[in-house]
Amino acid sequence: MSDDFFQPVSGFELPRFAGVPTFMRLPHVPLEHERLGEVDIGLIGVPWDSGTTNRPGPRHGPRQLRDASTMIRAQHATSGMRPFEAVNCADLGDVGPNPADIMDSMERITAFYDKVKAAGIRPLTAGGDHLTSLPVLRALAKDAPLGMVHFDSHTDLFHSYFNGTMYTHGTPFRRAVEEGLLDPKRVVQIGIRGTMYDSEDRDFARAEGIRIIEIEEFHARGVEDVMAEAREIAGDGETYVSYDIDFVDPTFAPGTGTPEVGGPNSFQALQVCRELQGLNIVGADMVEVSPPFDQSGGTAFLGVSIMFEILCVMAGQAG
Amino acid sequence: MSDDFFQPVSGFELPRFAGVPTFMRLPHVPLEHERLGEVDIGLIGVPWDSGTTNRPGPRHGPRQLRDASTMIRAQHATSGMRPFEAVNCADLGDVGPNPADIMDSMERITAFYDKVKAAGIRPLTAGGDHLTSLPVLRALAKDAPLGMVHFDSHTDLFHSYFNGTMYTHGTPFRRAVEEGLLDPKRVVQIGIRGTMYDSEDRDFARAEGIRIIEIEEFHARGVEDVMAEAREIAGDGETYVSYDIDFVDPTFAPGTGTPEVGGPNSFQALQVCRELQGLNIVGADMVEVSPPFDQSGGTAFLGVSIMFEILCVMAGQAG
Amino acid sequence: MSDDFFQPVSGFELPRFAGVPTFMRLPHVPLEHERLGEVDIGLIGVPWDSGTTNRPGPRHGPRQLRDASTMIRAQHATSGMRPFEAVNCADLGDVGPNPADIMDSMERITAFYDKVKAAGIRPLTAGGDHLTSLPVLRALAKDAPLGMVHFDSHTDLFHSYFNGTMYTHGTPFRRAVEEGLLDPKRVVQIGIRGTMYDSEDRDFARAEGIRIIEIEEFHARGVEDVMAEAREIAGDGETYVSYDIDFVDPTFAPGTGTPEVGGPNSFQALQVCRELQGLNIVGADMVEVSPPFDQSGGTAFLGVSIMFEILCVMAGQAG
Amino acid sequence: MSDDFFQPVSGFELPRFAGVPTFMRLPHVPLEHERLGEVDIGLIGVPWDSGTTNRPGPRHGPRQLRDASTMIRAQHATSGMRPFEAVNCADLGDVGPNPADIMDSMERITAFYDKVKAAGIRPLTAGGDHLTSLPVLRALAKDAPLGMVHFDSHTDLFHSYFNGTMYTHGTPFRRAVEEGLLDPKRVVQIGIRGTMYDSEDRDFARAEGIRIIEIEEFHARGVEDVMAEAREIAGDGETYVSYDIDFVDPTFAPGTGTPEVGGPNSFQALQVCRELQGLNIVGADMVEVSPPFDQSGGTAFLGVSIMFEILCVMAGQAG
Amino acid sequence: MSDDFFQPVSGFELPRFAGVPTFMRLPHVPLEHERLGEVDIGLIGVPWDSGTTNRPGPRHGPRQLRDASTMIRAQHATSGMRPFEAVNCADLGDVGPNPADIMDSMERITAFYDKVKAAGIRPLTAGGDHLTSLPVLRALAKDAPLGMVHFDSHTDLFHSYFNGTMYTHGTPFRRAVEEGLLDPKRVVQIGIRGTMYDSEDRDFARAEGIRIIEIEEFHARGVEDVMAEAREIAGDGETYVSYDIDFVDPTFAPGTGTPEVGGPNSFQALQVCRELQGLNIVGADMVEVSPPFDQSGGTAFLGVSIMFEILCVMAGQAG
Amino acid sequence: MSDDFFQPVSGFELPRFAGVPTFMRLPHVPLEHERLGEVDIGLIGVPWDSGTTNRPGPRHGPRQLRDASTMIRAQHATSGMRPFEAVNCADLGDVGPNPADIMDSMERITAFYDKVKAAGIRPLTAGGDHLTSLPVLRALAKDAPLGMVHFDSHTDLFHSYFNGTMYTHGTPFRRAVEEGLLDPKRVVQIGIRGTMYDSEDRDFARAEGIRIIEIEEFHARGVEDVMAEAREIAGDGETYVSYDIDFVDPTFAPGTGTPEVGGPNSFQALQVCRELQGLNIVGADMVEVSPPFDQSGGTAFLGVSIMFEILCVMAGQAG
Repeated sequence: MSDDFFQPVSGFELPRFAGVPTFMRLPHVPLEHERLGEVDIGLIGVPWDSGTTNRPGPRHGPRQLRDASTMIRAQHATSGMRPFEAVNCADLGDVGPNPADIMDSMERITAFYDKVKAAGIRPLTAGGDHLTSLPVLRALAKDAPLGMVHFDSHTDLFHSYFNGTMYTHGTPFRRAVEEGLLDPKRVVQIGIRGTMYDSEDRDFARAEGIRIIEIEEFHARGVEDVMAEAREIAGDGETYVSYDIDFVDPTFAPGTGTPEVGGPNSFQALQVCRELQGLNIVGADMVEVSPPFDQSGGTAFLGVSIMFEILCVMAGQAG
Repeated sequence: MSDDFFQPVSGFELPRFAGVPTFMRLPHVPLEHERLGEVDIGLIGVPWDSGTTNRPGPRHGPRQLRDASTMIRAQHATSGMRPFEAVNCADLGDVGPNPADIMDSMERITAFYDKVKAAGIRPLTAGGDHLTSLPVLRALAKDAPLGMVHFDSHTDLFHSYFNGTMYTHGTPFRRAVEEGLLDPKRVVQIGIRGTMYDSEDRDFARAEGIRIIEIEEFHARGVEDVMAEAREIAGDGETYVSYDIDFVDPTFAPGTGTPEVGGPNSFQALQVCRELQGLNIVGADMVEVSPPFDQSGGTAFLGVSIMFEILCVMAGQAG
Repeated sequence: MSDDFFQPVSGFELPRFAGVPTFMRLPHVPLEHERLGEVDIGLIGVPWDSGTTNRPGPRHGPRQLRDASTMIRAQHATSGMRPFEAVNCADLGDVGPNPADIMDSMERITAFYDKVKAAGIRPLTAGGDHLTSLPVLRALAKDAPLGMVHFDSHTDLFHSYFNGTMYTHGTPFRRAVEEGLLDPKRVVQIGIRGTMYDSEDRDFARAEGIRIIEIEEFHARGVEDVMAEAREIAGDGETYVSYDIDFVDPTFAPGTGTPEVGGPNSFQALQVCRELQGLNIVGADMVEVSPPFDQSGGTAFLGVSIMFEILCVMAGQAG
Repeated sequence: MSDDFFQPVSGFELPRFAGVPTFMRLPHVPLEHERLGEVDIGLIGVPWDSGTTNRPGPRHGPRQLRDASTMIRAQHATSGMRPFEAVNCADLGDVGPNPADIMDSMERITAFYDKVKAAGIRPLTAGGDHLTSLPVLRALAKDAPLGMVHFDSHTDLFHSYFNGTMYTHGTPFRRAVEEGLLDPKRVVQIGIRGTMYDSEDRDFARAEGIRIIEIEEFHARGVEDVMAEAREIAGDGETYVSYDIDFVDPTFAPGTGTPEVGGPNSFQALQVCRELQGLNIVGADMVEVSPPFDQSGGTAFLGVSIMFEILCVMAGQAG
Repeated sequence: MSDDFFQPVSGFELPRFAGVPTFMRLPHVPLEHERLGEVDIGLIGVPWDSGTTNRPGPRHGPRQLRDASTMIRAQHATSGMRPFEAVNCADLGDVGPNPADIMDSMERITAFYDKVKAAGIRPLTAGGDHLTSLPVLRALAKDAPLGMVHFDSHTDLFHSYFNGTMYTHGTPFRRAVEEGLLDPKRVVQIGIRGTMYDSEDRDFARAEGIRIIEIEEFHARGVEDVMAEAREIAGDGETYVSYDIDFVDPTFAPGTGTPEVGGPNSFQALQVCRELQGLNIVGADMVEVSPPFDQSGGTAFLGVSIMFEILCVMAGQAG
Repeated sequence: MSDDFFQPVSGFELPRFAGVPTFMRLPHVPLEHERLGEVDIGLIGVPWDSGTTNRPGPRHGPRQLRDASTMIRAQHATSGMRPFEAVNCADLGDVGPNPADIMDSMERITAFYDKVKAAGIRPLTAGGDHLTSLPVLRALAKDAPLGMVHFDSHTDLFHSYFNGTMYTHGTPFRRAVEEGLLDPKRVVQIGIRGTMYDSEDRDFARAEGIRIIEIEEFHARGVEDVMAEAREIAGDGETYVSYDIDFVDPTFAPGTGTPEVGGPNSFQALQVCRELQGLNIVGADMVEVSPPFDQSGGTAFLGVSIMFEILCVMAGQAG
């Protein structure tokens, strides 16, 4: 069991609104910290939104997610999992992006995650817009392509925007497939919906063998059935979980830049995570939380509730 | 196929937050425009709320709906319909009401829609409170009574308010039936709920043969079954679709003046529109969107998402 | 039938946004009023949140609930019940708490409810945080322990907080069982969820025979089945209904201090009340509505809509 | 001194957030109340905005002003005046308007104020939009024209709007002069500013002898100098005070429908009231407070703080 | 006098909340419009914030400024200027930026303004963050360096950010001086304040002869005295006016990304513009309005009120 | 000069929205930290509002103040002071209160500050409501009574509330004088205003020799003159500075529980701090910042801007 250093501050000792807010009230362990090597799962912020083509704001995501995360307690209600006892978890801090230079930022992110990987830490990232996933994958999938379970309302598989711009939050997984970071046959995208520019992204998915489960199919089949298929697609290999908060219906998660109506509710948003049990998850992210559009803070609270669900699954792998 | 003039500005050329906001980024074609005669479906704003007996605000509806509508892209995700290519769509601008004179305003609205009808254009209206539907119907149903599929939490069938006031947003369809604009046997009202003053409106509906599907029945039977009945009631004749945003649960659509809890969610809000396929729709409206009560703008975005669904069905009729 | 004095002001005479806001536009009948003895059901505010361990605000609940309650009309849509005609209802005003002294406040509340009970009035309380229920139960259960149907995301069965503090909004029902105010065998808690400190509350419940229906079970079985069991547990004896607004999903009810995602929607929030029919309800409360976190006012409107549902059931008992 | 019945509830007995909110926690004395005849100053709500040509909302003003007014205590900090002891003050409730009929509403308002005047009560009104002042003046100036000190950013002296509409919130004082309710030589308008349609209103003022003090002159001369002139203009005769909240800079009072930037700050907003000392005030109003545009509630709190200042002056007259 | 085509829609004909919102209700005249050559002053939106190093959002500025601008009427209250009659004004639409490529965006902007300048149109720009001024100046100062009157709380004279990033909203005027677009001896910066990283920007200003008037000096000397000096510095030559909304105190203008407390109030914000009279203004901008941080919309309304003041001065030049 | 450990993170290295938010991006040095003894000035949060008699929320103050404080840079614009180089500053974390027990909380706070004082650290506190000052003073004034410069709209000198409750945010300085923690002859209260219950607090002040400078006097005399007197009153002895954010006008600082209109603006709010130069400040606090009523976050940003001003004065003492 995890030692005291890695235990979150209890709300019975220090009220949950008190204290310097780290992720889930965990110890802050920067990359140069002496106990970095003992960390199993690292929560990392990537406050960056330079890939955003519509409404900005995810650069403020990690700050607000940390704030909301102090409401999270130590035990999962259904599974009984106590992740902070099962494995060593810590807040590794934020990767500092360059808000005015996309390529520089991506290099910084990849460099950070290279160190995380080298330290044997599985990262659980709080973005940031969805372009964040690309430089993270460049570190995690350095050796071999990963499978991916991807919750979103968009495929993010477009070739380019605005006359050839290759790096936006609508293109990360196109790049990741092209760069060999993802094995398209082991990728499933769930919750896709909304009006479309055209079918270019769907055509690419079909050609590459990426499985898209649109929202109509999701609602018709239900969480358990859909997720059983998702597990089968991802298989036993190393898998990345990417969770765009706009997967959830915008009424439940208004704080995001490119909402699409008609998505899952908050219970389903949690359920899909529980069904990740059994996968070999080497990293995960929660992206596109945009505080300027989240006046009540409810999106961030849902975001960290989802992160806790994923964390419990990841902690269980290590048991 | 529609020519270039009638194509919306693409978000890949001009980001969706840029540009003068017309409905769905369509060309602005006022009634005196030289190409008015080529328009098939006209999107029209009626910024008016003088019939509102409770919380005001729908006069600001068209402005906010236009703003939100620039997030709509060109293709429907499920049906693949590309309405702006299928038919000629345009933003016909707003009818200018007289905020301090109800009768004058109704005359202005009817006069505007007389011209729209004369030009062979099917109108898709953004209100405005629900009294808007009455002067619109006076133009559209000039020759013969219409059927109507009506989504709402209220029947709007009351005789009068406040000691005899005949024209409020609670009376338009009572007047419309009395004036012979609607054929009550071909009218169905879906989603009715909320606390009641009394049963006067229900008694009128029963006497006239209007079919009311209350929310309990809606939830019990589901969208497909309910809508199959609705299509049967409306039949093959000319039909009007009136969509009060308070049909949707107020958590999904808080920006409205007379909310009633317990309504459909956002996915159902879209689904009911898809099930209008096959009707002979001569006009439609989206009413009671009240921006002052819609701090996040989510209601307007849901409103235009619904308008796009209806537009796709209307565009399909022309195919 | 109730006489004119006890009728709420009609929205057709005075618009619903007008007038001094009492609960549901009922007459204000303070304890010293000459007609107190004729009241059957008394709506009472307890503007108090000293037991709140997390985000404060329920002290403002009664004011906002009164404001929102002027949107409630006289008749229930489904059952046709007209509660204000069936029995005499009145707004008994607020119990004045001492915001800086918990014990003094609890005494004031119990003293108030002693008089309410003595006058033969069944109270429907608008809190206040959940500690409110304890001093109310001390008056209502003076003679014998009550059964309870409890809607909540938390059990509120903890022993103590912060090194031995016995009176917080997380402990009222632990105290109530210890003090013999509740018969644990006749207590059911519905909707329990969220991350946990530990299992101490669940252990207590199990030991005492309190039935906990967690949210997963609730979603799996549905409202009707769950509530049938709830009615069986509460039985024929005198029963209290305690409704914490955080039972409902926080998207539908953001205005509360300790939200937990994944709860029931607004339709289910009403349905569970309708299924209380047949119980012997001697009092009820709606607690934890926190206006500072309810920017749109939607939580308060849902809260009073639920209060109206409960009121209709209570009024039906008297028929 | 005023007896106990007319004393507001003390915040030391009942916290200021508690209780049914009447104006300044005064007793609610409707027109049919047995003690109406003892009232000296009556606080009255007119929840009405049918004259609004721009952004609506003042119909919600009285409700929010009552709510905010429970923050007002019993004594003026500078003058030491305790108005509720000096004279009998009461909340007379709201005039019920007809939201869908301007002429009917004006008749209802005048009828209400006829009774108020007949009872010897000086009214302090909480609007409502500025058209409210006209039907009030029709009652108060029945016998002879009044002088007026008018704080506003607009003159409200226009002839008509929208092709001849005579009754809007931009025309009340044009009508009042035409109807002989105001003596234009004894009228002063202070704080006028903002972009203009044209100079028609200024031309009318000049022709009739109404004195307009524009904001530049106000800022240059200061409160004391300007108000000395204002007192001279109004003179010893019966005088009405009309205070449009948009007199104040919109940063201090955002909750209003037609803001104009560059106005007085909140301290000046109070100071001008103190300088009304010595006038013969027969009635006053605070209008155009629009809660839907006042998210923080600060406008309403400023509004009632101003009302308290005016009340202290009016109470001093009776001493 | 300007012909009818260039007149804004009157609020007496079409209420100010109605219609497709162009800047100040002027005609929309894109660069390819046949009457472009007749335009004297062009209002242009640059919806772009890629240079923002702190809180994002100005990309939404033009949309919200257009919306608020429909509240502006035709005549200046103090000067009597009617700019839309004095000269031909039009809304030239937005420059489409590339949100994910700074260099591409700057080229697009300069190309747009090259055409504007070639058409003999003086631009009044609605940004966009402050980096916007650089590509605009590249077009306007192609032939010779300009003088500049710059209202801001920051100098925007930094060399670079984040290890050498040259193009951010903190560097535009450093670049402009280096590129010979501004004559530093004719540049004055007014309102500078706030905590500092270091003095590098001030050192540069001193070395180049740029005059900085810090806020303490501004408050001590007053608007007239400060602006007399500003006019003297800018002299008779061609001058650019750059107005960062964060010049104004953030209470009056919260909707901006890098606020600094202690600035001018809204009246002073207008006054400084009136004191620009007599300058030879070849272009002006209003930048850093960030709608996501402007919940009430008051910042945008102040922004367009300032734009109208500048427009009146520019229109007067042409007289 | 302070070593690297005590330097805040630069915004040029890590953008200001990034990273775990400590006060002013300083190192987090809990009481048990090995370098505690090197700290000169400690920034401490007291997230507590149990003394609040009106609107709650200051328990959330420290969290939000930390968040806003990451916008503060390293150098004062006017004085050039670089406090983090002049002395060693650190974030000492929060004192954990007991939200449901006032006496327990006060003991915890005093115990914390005893250790701070013992370590030779001068505390700069972020409250918490104003009762916070009492347990802090109990530690700081253990040896001898302090002088105090107190900015506020209330005297906080009341004897008791609600029938004898001695510890609320309206009584701390009454207690402090009674307990010999303050020397009343060396206490000055600045900015007092607002409606009053009665004159009991003023009577006490007069009897004890406390100097009250009401807002009228403040506005009439100006900051410099008033503060010269304040410095004279406090004299050379050890002095505490207590700054209630409700000193500032509520338009500039809406996020507070008991606002009073008509106060100083934001520039004056900073100026008064600069005039503290020369005092012997042994501790200071910023209290009553209430995030739930501060939707834009502007109050917190003003609060930390004031804290930085005070910090610069305190840092200068040590030079």
